[in-house]
Amino acid sequence: MLSRSQHDEDNLAPEACDGIAVLDEDDMNEPNLSNRNSQRPDPAFLFDLDGTLVDSVYQHVLAWREALEDLGIELAVWRIHRRIGMSGGLLINALLREIGRRVTQTEADRLARMHEEAYARLRPQVRALPGALELLTHLSRAEIPWAIATSGRPASASPMLDLLHLSPEIPVITRDQVERAKPDPDLFLAAAKSLGVSIRQSVVVGDSVWDLLAARRASALGVGFLSGGYGQDELEAAGAYRVYQDPTDLLRHLDEVGVRSAY
Amino acid sequence: MLSRSQHDEDNLAPEACDGIAVLDEDDMNEPNLSNRNSQRPDPAFLFDLDGTLVDSVYQHVLAWREALEDLGIELAVWRIHRRIGMSGGLLINALLREIGRRVTQTEADRLARMHEEAYARLRPQVRALPGALELLTHLSRAEIPWAIATSGRPASASPMLDLLHLSPEIPVITRDQVERAKPDPDLFLAAAKSLGVSIRQSVVVGDSVWDLLAARRASALGVGFLSGGYGQDELEAAGAYRVYQDPTDLLRHLDEVGVRSAY
Repeated sequence: MLSRSQHDEDNLAPEACDGIAVLDEDDMNEPNLSNRNSQRPDPAFLFDLDGTLVDSVYQHVLAWREALEDLGIELAVWRIHRRIGMSGGLLINALLREIGRRVTQTEADRLARMHEEAYARLRPQVRALPGALELLTHLSRAEIPWAIATSGRPASASPMLDLLHLSPEIPVITRDQVERAKPDPDLFLAAAKSLGVSIRQSVVVGDSVWDLLAARRASALGVGFLSGGYGQDELEAAGAYRVYQDPTDLLRHLDEVGVRSAY
Repeated sequence: MLSRSQHDEDNLAPEACDGIAVLDEDDMNEPNLSNRNSQRPDPAFLFDLDGTLVDSVYQHVLAWREALEDLGIELAVWRIHRRIGMSGGLLINALLREIGRRVTQTEADRLARMHEEAYARLRPQVRALPGALELLTHLSRAEIPWAIATSGRPASASPMLDLLHLSPEIPVITRDQVERAKPDPDLFLAAAKSLGVSIRQSVVVGDSVWDLLAARRASALGVGFLSGGYGQDELEAAGAYRVYQDPTDLLRHLDEVGVRSAY
């Protein structure tokens, strides 16, 4: 596993430093300076959706609570919160393991269906997070590639994408397009591939420790947001190179993660 | 401000250590050993209510979100979560300061009323936290004094107390009985007074950093629960001597906070 500082060196530090470097004579005489720079483009951004671009985590949490209780399973709400962002199947298994109960495939399917129904009722309350539209617009204008990678299925992701006024050319990778959802790296690997960028040149942005674990496993740089309700220490401990409050806060600090076209 | 280790020494370490101490000869010859011990009773417990004994934090959070939006104020849900447990007035002021808006007294009153209405709709979902009844029953049977101190008003606290099957002799201090709610220490000071115990002999148990700040200011020992959705590091940084998952977890570790009548 890469340490955070290794991550940093591999992916971003040289880029980030170029902007403030005092060039010595050797550098000044380097004939291919512009070429060399053009080989080090701004990083690409791979965004989680729920809790990162849209403010939907707490509604998802209460929708899972309702679905679980309908099946006669009482679980404290904070335990559900701490599992949000995983694939639905893993979430169900992890939660039930905590109360020492196993679930049949039929029950798991029913839980997933009931969660979707409960969430659909709460969905009208969900908004884009502050700065999400501005951040995505800025990246597009600066021609910095970005994509969305979510553990959600297309049916639940689609209304969230509408909140972001996404143009059709933006790649969106959903649960059904990969074998394994987070914390496996498949979603982010597929997102980088769809952009035609290297995963090692990519910044994964997410609100949960599962995003950051997936980022590490994919060898991408992980950046955390507080907007999903995790604390800063938890995100850092899970491997976040930097933690920002929300999309507005990242937009103001894009230079810290290696973007030359800062806001 | 006391460091955590000082706290520990002042309040609990001698008690907690007695149970496992190997007495040397001097100790064996101490004539008033039993008397000395009887002067050091088990600590009293002062419990927060929402998020500590009942699983109501996430419903409170979404009720505040709804109330704020009705007033045309859009705030990300995690910011509301991080303020829960403060007095309602402080919460409103703190949230609005973050978006650079001031609120009139009329607006604040309306917000508080709308929060109460929205919460009343979500209240049927709220359950006692795992182990809450067992913990309180154990303390009562062991004749360890305990009380509840909540920033809530009697109208919203009363249905929560019903979930705990509280007998009428248990002191419950609500917002209206003190001048200032958490993070001021008034609620916990009043709770200790109602039990006739010293606040320095008391353990304050809460799920939010505001409980722990109030505990410090009251010179009580603070113990944190993860059941309100804060991370362990946040609670420790706010001064928690120990952090447990929930009431069940504390019940299993009562000896760690100085209780001889362990479960």
